[in-house]
Amino acid sequence: MKENVFGEEEDEPQRPWLLRSGLTAEDSCLMILPMNFSPLLDVFVDVSLPPETMAKLREGAVGCRVIMSRWPAVSVLARAEPDTALAQADIAFGQPDPGLVLASERLRWMHVASSGITRYDTPEFRAQLKQKGIVFTHSPSVYAEPCANQVLCFMLAQSRVLPRALTTRCPGGSADWRALRDGCVLLRGQRALILGYGAIGRRLVELLRPFDMYVTAYRRRPRGDEAVPVIPAEALNAALAESDHVVNILPESAETRGFFDAARFAAIKPGAVFYNIGRGTTVNQKALEAALRSGHLRAAWLDVTDPEPLPDDHPLWTAPNCYITPHIAGGYSTETESLIRHFLENLRRFRSGEPMLDRVV
Amino acid sequence: MKENVFGEEEDEPQRPWLLRSGLTAEDSCLMILPMNFSPLLDVFVDVSLPPETMAKLREGAVGCRVIMSRWPAVSVLARAEPDTALAQADIAFGQPDPGLVLASERLRWMHVASSGITRYDTPEFRAQLKQKGIVFTHSPSVYAEPCANQVLCFMLAQSRVLPRALTTRCPGGSADWRALRDGCVLLRGQRALILGYGAIGRRLVELLRPFDMYVTAYRRRPRGDEAVPVIPAEALNAALAESDHVVNILPESAETRGFFDAARFAAIKPGAVFYNIGRGTTVNQKALEAALRSGHLRAAWLDVTDPEPLPDDHPLWTAPNCYITPHIAGGYSTETESLIRHFLENLRRFRSGEPMLDRVV
Repeated sequence: MKENVFGEEEDEPQRPWLLRSGLTAEDSCLMILPMNFSPLLDVFVDVSLPPETMAKLREGAVGCRVIMSRWPAVSVLARAEPDTALAQADIAFGQPDPGLVLASERLRWMHVASSGITRYDTPEFRAQLKQKGIVFTHSPSVYAEPCANQVLCFMLAQSRVLPRALTTRCPGGSADWRALRDGCVLLRGQRALILGYGAIGRRLVELLRPFDMYVTAYRRRPRGDEAVPVIPAEALNAALAESDHVVNILPESAETRGFFDAARFAAIKPGAVFYNIGRGTTVNQKALEAALRSGHLRAAWLDVTDPEPLPDDHPLWTAPNCYITPHIAGGYSTETESLIRHFLENLRRFRSGEPMLDRVV
Repeated sequence: MKENVFGEEEDEPQRPWLLRSGLTAEDSCLMILPMNFSPLLDVFVDVSLPPETMAKLREGAVGCRVIMSRWPAVSVLARAEPDTALAQADIAFGQPDPGLVLASERLRWMHVASSGITRYDTPEFRAQLKQKGIVFTHSPSVYAEPCANQVLCFMLAQSRVLPRALTTRCPGGSADWRALRDGCVLLRGQRALILGYGAIGRRLVELLRPFDMYVTAYRRRPRGDEAVPVIPAEALNAALAESDHVVNILPESAETRGFFDAARFAAIKPGAVFYNIGRGTTVNQKALEAALRSGHLRAAWLDVTDPEPLPDDHPLWTAPNCYITPHIAGGYSTETESLIRHFLENLRRFRSGEPMLDRVV
C-alpha cells in the first residue's frame, strides 16, 4: 500500500503503459520517470470518438487506463446511458451520469466534453461536488472558436442578404438587383447585445472588433474583466430596445428556460435580428414565430431549437426570414483532436496541481 | 468677365443657390461668403440616383450647377449613353464617356461612381488626362466596407458549410450531422492570398486580423505600405500552391483579362476555395468550371461573372459547390448617400486644392 496523489492509500498501481511501450517488467527499474510522474489513474470515457482520436487519447494519457463505457453517447452533445463502470474511475470524461458521479467513492475529477453543462448546472450538484472534492471542468475553449465563427457567419449572411442573393438571378439595375443591394447593411456602427458572455462571447467580441460596432453583454454573474460593457438585469430591456443584433448564447438553466418570451421579444428594437447558438430551450418558440410573422424581428438565425431537429410540420420552418442550422456551431474538422488536446492539458494540470482550464467547481 | 479658379476668364457666374435659399438678388450683397467660396462650377451627372440622394447632392454642392444627363446609367456600375451636355461641365460625376471626356475643352475633374474603372484604365487615357490637366478620381472608399464584408461573408459561409447546413434537417449524432460538423473548418491558421490589393483588400486584411490567418497579397504595383507581405509576380504560383483561400479582387484591364486560366487554377492548392468579387472577365470560366467539376477546387464563391447574369443554361450554375450572387458586393442601404458624401468631400478638396481621395490621375 502507498499514497496516491490525493494523499490516500491505494494498492500498488498496475502499469500497463510499460507493457504497451514494449518494455518488460525487468526494464522498468531502468526507466527514468518524468518529473510529473503520477501513479495510474483510471479514466472513464462515455463519449464515442473516432478510433484515431481514441488512439491519441490513450497515447497522450500516459500512466492512465482508459475505461470505455459500454454505452457511449453518439456525440459530444448527447446524453450517454449510465454505465456503472464509472464507479471504478478516478476521472470521468464525456457526459457522465450525475447520479453515478455523486455515488462514486473514487471519482476526483469530471471533464464534460461539451460547452453546455445543463444537466450539471444546479446549485445542489455543484455543492455536492465541492463537498466530495470532485473537480468539475468542461470544454468551452474547444468550441469558442467555431461558435464565434458561426455567429459572425450568421451576422454577415444576414447583413449581405446571402440566402436571397444566392437564389436571385438578375441583371444590374433591375428592381430585384436594387432590392438586394439596398437590403444589405453595414455592420459598422451597428449595435449588438450578447447574452451569455463566456468563452464564445469573448471570442466573438474579438472577431467583431474591426467592425467598429457598439457591443455590450449580459451575463448571470459579471466578473468585471469582460472586454465590453456588461449591463445589469434591470437595464436589459433598454439594451434590447436599441440593439440591431441580439445574440443569444445563454446556457440552459432554471433561470434561462424560456428567457426569450413574448415580452422579451417585444422589448427588442423593431427590425433587429435575433441569433441563437446557445440552447433552444431558452426561447419560447411560439413567441419567436409571432415576432417573425409580425415583422417585428427582421430575421432569426438559429443553430439550436427545442427539440432538435424540429418536427417537419413545425411553424418555424416556414416563418419568414427564419434560418435554421442543425446544431453544428461547435463543429469543425479537428474538433475531436482539440477536445482530446484540451482534456490532456487539463490532465497535466490536474496531476501537477496547476489551475485547470474551464473549471466550474 | 472675371477669372475662375483655374485662372481662366469666364462670364459672371449665375448663382441659382441664392434663389433656392429664398434670398433675392438684392440680398446677395449682404451675404458673408464662406472661406472656401469658389465661383459656380457645372457638374455633369450621368448616373441615376434616388431623388432624396440627388437632393443631398444639390444641397451639398453649394455654388455648383448640376447638369443631369438625358440618358443616365441605371446603376453606378452600368455604362451611361454618351450625352454631349458633358461638354458644358467643369466636373463629371458618374460613368462619363471617355471620348467626351477627352473631347471636352472645359472639364477639370472626373469622378467615377464605382470602384472599377475598366473603361478608363489604359496608359493612353491616363496620359491624355494628365496632358489636359484633368483630375481623375473614383470611389473605392465607398465600396471597400461592403465588399470586404462580402468576402468575409463568403469565407465564413464556406467554412461553416452554410448553404448545406441551412437545408439539412438531421438529429445530432446522425451521419448527416457528423458530415456537416466535420465539413466545417476554422479560418484560424489558414492561408489566404488576396489578388488585387486596394481599398477592399486593405479593409479585408483588417477584418481578417483577429482570425490569425496567414494573409499575403499580390498587386500590379506594390507601394511598400501594404499591411501584409506582397508577393512578386514570379512567386505567384508558389503562393497559390499553399493558399487555402484565393481571393480575386483584380480589376479588369488588358493585363488581367482571363488572368485565372487553366494553368493558374492548376497552380492553386488542391481543396482550396476561390472567391471573385473583382470582375468576371479576369476568370476563364471554362477553366473554373473544370477545376470545380474535377474537385480540384473545393468551392467557388462568385459575385461577378461574365456576362452578368450568366445565361440560364450556363454550366457554372450547376457546377459543384459554385455559389453565385448577382454583383451585389458593393451594395448597402446607405450606398448612394456615401457615394454623394465621398464626392462632396472630394469637391471640397478640389476647390481648396487639398489632396483628393482615391485619385488615379
